[in-house]
Amino acid sequence: METIRLYDTTLRDGTQGENITFSAQEKFEIAQRLDKLGIHYIEGGWPGSNPRDLKFFELARKAEFKTARIAAFGSTRKPGIGPEHDSNLLALIRSAAETLTIFGKTWDLHIEQVMGISLEENLSMIRDSIGYLKNQRREVIYDAEHFFDGYRSNPDYAIRTLLEAIRGGADWIVLCDTNGGFLPFKIQSTMDSVFRSLAAELDTQPDNIPVKVGIHTHNDCGMAVANAIEAVRCGAVMVHGTINGYGERCGNADLTSIIPILALKMQLPCIAPDQLTGLKTLSRFISETANIVPSNTRPFVGKSAFAHKGGIHVNAIMKNPKAYEHIDPEWVGNRRRVLVSDLSGKSNVEYKARELGVDLDSNGYNSRQIVEEVKSLEERGYQFDAADGSFRILLEKFTEQFKPHFDLESFRISVEKDKDKPCSAHATIKISVGEQHEITAAEGLGPVSALDNALRKALDKFYPEIESMRLVDFKVRVIEGREGTAARVRVLIESRDQDDIWSTIGVSEDIIEASWQALADSFQYKLAKENRISIAV
Amino acid sequence: METIRLYDTTLRDGTQGENITFSAQEKFEIAQRLDKLGIHYIEGGWPGSNPRDLKFFELARKAEFKTARIAAFGSTRKPGIGPEHDSNLLALIRSAAETLTIFGKTWDLHIEQVMGISLEENLSMIRDSIGYLKNQRREVIYDAEHFFDGYRSNPDYAIRTLLEAIRGGADWIVLCDTNGGFLPFKIQSTMDSVFRSLAAELDTQPDNIPVKVGIHTHNDCGMAVANAIEAVRCGAVMVHGTINGYGERCGNADLTSIIPILALKMQLPCIAPDQLTGLKTLSRFISETANIVPSNTRPFVGKSAFAHKGGIHVNAIMKNPKAYEHIDPEWVGNRRRVLVSDLSGKSNVEYKARELGVDLDSNGYNSRQIVEEVKSLEERGYQFDAADGSFRILLEKFTEQFKPHFDLESFRISVEKDKDKPCSAHATIKISVGEQHEITAAEGLGPVSALDNALRKALDKFYPEIESMRLVDFKVRVIEGREGTAARVRVLIESRDQDDIWSTIGVSEDIIEASWQALADSFQYKLAKENRISIAV
Repeated sequence: METIRLYDTTLRDGTQGENITFSAQEKFEIAQRLDKLGIHYIEGGWPGSNPRDLKFFELARKAEFKTARIAAFGSTRKPGIGPEHDSNLLALIRSAAETLTIFGKTWDLHIEQVMGISLEENLSMIRDSIGYLKNQRREVIYDAEHFFDGYRSNPDYAIRTLLEAIRGGADWIVLCDTNGGFLPFKIQSTMDSVFRSLAAELDTQPDNIPVKVGIHTHNDCGMAVANAIEAVRCGAVMVHGTINGYGERCGNADLTSIIPILALKMQLPCIAPDQLTGLKTLSRFISETANIVPSNTRPFVGKSAFAHKGGIHVNAIMKNPKAYEHIDPEWVGNRRRVLVSDLSGKSNVEYKARELGVDLDSNGYNSRQIVEEVKSLEERGYQFDAADGSFRILLEKFTEQFKPHFDLESFRISVEKDKDKPCSAHATIKISVGEQHEITAAEGLGPVSALDNALRKALDKFYPEIESMRLVDFKVRVIEGREGTAARVRVLIESRDQDDIWSTIGVSEDIIEASWQALADSFQYKLAKENRISIAV
Repeated sequence: METIRLYDTTLRDGTQGENITFSAQEKFEIAQRLDKLGIHYIEGGWPGSNPRDLKFFELARKAEFKTARIAAFGSTRKPGIGPEHDSNLLALIRSAAETLTIFGKTWDLHIEQVMGISLEENLSMIRDSIGYLKNQRREVIYDAEHFFDGYRSNPDYAIRTLLEAIRGGADWIVLCDTNGGFLPFKIQSTMDSVFRSLAAELDTQPDNIPVKVGIHTHNDCGMAVANAIEAVRCGAVMVHGTINGYGERCGNADLTSIIPILALKMQLPCIAPDQLTGLKTLSRFISETANIVPSNTRPFVGKSAFAHKGGIHVNAIMKNPKAYEHIDPEWVGNRRRVLVSDLSGKSNVEYKARELGVDLDSNGYNSRQIVEEVKSLEERGYQFDAADGSFRILLEKFTEQFKPHFDLESFRISVEKDKDKPCSAHATIKISVGEQHEITAAEGLGPVSALDNALRKALDKFYPEIESMRLVDFKVRVIEGREGTAARVRVLIESRDQDDIWSTIGVSEDIIEASWQALADSFQYKLAKENRISIAV
């Protein structure tokens, strides 16, 4: 069975997404990670468009890639000049990439209305450009931009553009749903017709046309993955996509879904099972590099992808995980999580305690009592499904296993504002660690930031390991926000270090009190974690 | 052509999602919004499972819904008892919902391994329970949980469960991909077999079986929308989903994609075009109520769904938007975003100014300049669609028509905490009104509350009318929550008096500064309003 080639365009089409940019060095690091996962093609950028992409190809040239071929992207030549004079094609060749991918126009609307050239001129642009690149002995992939829109508008012409690409010598033709407006059943009917038409024109069978076909989809209908999969069923053997689905508008087809679907659900050859277990880490690495908050609900790789909240569900997966899990989370490097909430019961708490490694029964407490305590806290606004870190500390407190790494003696925060000048905030904090005391002060952008800085400074003396930890998200929610500023406030803090992400919670009528609870839990969690690790080692 | 019924389960299955909770009152407000959009069924909750859901049904009973039927959710009876003794079924009946939806088991793995009962017992649980509810003259929807997994494991038995539901009198049978593990082509082959098998058993034609069929899908493969659409093509006439795709693990089928696909792409009757234009606002309302950051890349309704970044793209859409847009964004209430001055912005501002009674041109300012100012504030995180009060003040400031009723001289807030004792907060404020100064202090539950109390006390001397005003809501949102506590914070305050409700906004890296802006605007708005009224009278 033919291997399905994975063509990653995170570094090119992915960076068309709002807020997504990578430096040349970051691109290079991502490319190495993609290679390690077993991606077959890595599109590094558009060397004709900017110096950063040029630099990436310089870095890539000197490196060794195990599986991946590096592809450079560009367009067919400009109208009215020979390919040998087209600066964009020359930049592609200079990039020294083994594979060159160029896009050309399929849709008469674009050719006539946007570019203002004739349909015939466009055909020779496709054939010339590909022929010129093939003469340089490179692999050439032809991206048929707006293929599906073009085919709907003028099927005969759309087929002619592909024939020109084939006659020009393209190794691959890739059918693009550039605007993302198509549904799977239309992809299927179009692809079937395309294979039949090409076969008729080339005097062969639909399963024997002399070029390989790929698919490139966008997510404007939420169908990018479904369309790509449908295309593979119709005969495509290359899938274009990006990690985490990053890309213009609603994004590109998300390879973090496509890869496990191909490998696990359809059992098609693409990447090896031991590479697949690196998928979640790769997804996280790329969202970290892009500095985009990872989507918790992302299929396969999201933090919540195997998280169970309903009591019935938790009870069932304790008997057999297949009851509410479509695959084993470890196959993609993810893990099962049980959420604790007022929808849930005793099983969740017991499961969660096991997961966190907290022994519930040893101190004479039973999980039913703990469920009651958790429920009463939830009635006051706590929400532990979103705060693993605080839940762990809570379980330890209930069972008298909690060993604080520091105690608060006191803090004072003051915020001052004069006329139109910005506010200034500073905090003084006094903590104790065992018999020792530390008092210190810090400024910050706002009272919580000042408090965070002061606590960090005070703890640093005792626990230098907190330097690796930082807050990544800070969420404030007014609960039943109907009583003005005296309403109860819930603060959720997400923190991370090199290895881990954890969440903590605080609830109070006072936002500072709530923030303090979440902040203190976060530092306690980190310090307990370091401690557990050092014991284990 | 048969209307495709939209069945929304945001309030039930949606709340199984991590971090998603709604109070009874919030559920009620959401239900009214769903009704306004034209949703046919609103599943409000599980009355047998918790008091909050019971309260929702009480609220719903007293209200009037134009299009929507309210559905209550529960399970088939427990094993070994009659339906008339099953507390869960009794709670369903007591909810007084017109439509009752119960789920039952299809998958032998669940029945035998998780529940530990016989396959036969499960069949009678399905038939009994439905029959009992039908005797109460309610519409009954049967959710066949894990239908696709069950059918794969034991097709004959899966069909028998449906036959029991039909014989029990179910009005609808809904096939569920509970674990979200199926791909569209499997949905299609399964549904085709199911229609054929049911027709054979019931001695009729596949397109004439005596029950309507629905589909309920989950997004664990990123296929929830694609699977639901495929099911509709196979004959399903009811689609279950949630707004924004909220739900357990990777979520449910996202109605914000399904509705426009059905209405615009497949031209199937479901909701009217003028209702469809409310889609983006509804999506935003529900993410605000859940306090979940809206996904910018969400198809159709996301902020980036029609945002054009690449220069080529922007140039092309200026010639013809169809070049890179699969639909007109306004059909779903969204808008195009490009990095060039846009005329819709200008008309929005003019329209809004007229609505607020602010004369834009009288001071030599034109609305294009104001659009630029508003845009630059929006880039910094201001959001004026949610803050009419601040927008009015802003327009007045730009056009030099703003007459402050007070000026801030300075404030000082301090928050103190000792050991485990609660925080205490107090604020000192000095304001001027004309030539007069007032300095005063107050305590509060937290710094913002203290500041509110102090400002109120200081103003009371000059403007006793502020006594009729109070804050009713206080919302805090961290924008682009990526840099921990130093991230930018948006505060929205809602205030009201006897006649009016108004909203104001503040944005800053410092939560106190942001709160102050919103608070000051709120009081200024109130005082200006009183002034305008007294002139008018």
